[in-house]
Amino acid sequence: MNKIEHIGIAVKDLAEAEEKWAKLLNTLSYKRELVESEGVITSFFKVGETKIELLAPTTANSPIQKFLDKRGEGIHHIAFAVDNIEAKMKELANQGFTLINETPKKGADRKKVAFLHPKSTGGILVELCQDL
Amino acid sequence: MNKIEHIGIAVKDLAEAEEKWAKLLNTLSYKRELVESEGVITSFFKVGETKIELLAPTTANSPIQKFLDKRGEGIHHIAFAVDNIEAKMKELANQGFTLINETPKKGADRKKVAFLHPKSTGGILVELCQDL
Repeated sequence: MNKIEHIGIAVKDLAEAEEKWAKLLNTLSYKRELVESEGVITSFFKVGETKIELLAPTTANSPIQKFLDKRGEGIHHIAFAVDNIEAKMKELANQGFTLINETPKKGADRKKVAFLHPKSTGGILVELCQDL
Repeated sequence: MNKIEHIGIAVKDLAEAEEKWAKLLNTLSYKRELVESEGVITSFFKVGETKIELLAPTTANSPIQKFLDKRGEGIHHIAFAVDNIEAKMKELANQGFTLINETPKKGADRKKVAFLHPKSTGGILVELCQDL
């Protein structure tokens, strides 16, 4: 893992959360991006070498809506930047981590992404991501 | 906020979690530190410019034990590095964030630290920290 690429945060209301995080980080969101396949709209803030990614649901069966219903607002996942996502997935599977998706899929922010199941990481949804 | 200084992760068994995170990050913990006043033992991993801080309880009334009882293992807080913690605390309080402690206290890793209440940050325990 090269660095923390971003921290994903589940929010109910994107505009309200953007206002809060702009105050907290003293910087504005630099882009919004809709990920239609996941039923989510994202908003990104830079902080040092990493990012805060706000995630708001756009559909009732969005995974983010399910997270909000179950856990409420809060940290949804941590994403790590990797050079070769397929190799890292294989390496981690061999070490006993459980992959949620067997092959990378297209994520927000021009990335190939894959997730590790929280049951294998001590309760944390871990994303691997590689620039496309 | 200059950067994410660390992500704090609550774990039940420090040695077991260290083994898991060493595999995940492909690097070993570089130090353990007991914070007796908080009833917690910590273990640190470097990843890019930031750190993963594992937190295990050492007493039954440790805040980490209470977190584990309530939420289970997972992300406990995000810490941001600041240059002047007193000034940042004042600025954020003026913007409507709720401080948990009114003055900074001594944290792990030679830092002055202060916390923002999750109710004011969208469900996330936010730590501010400044090098001593």
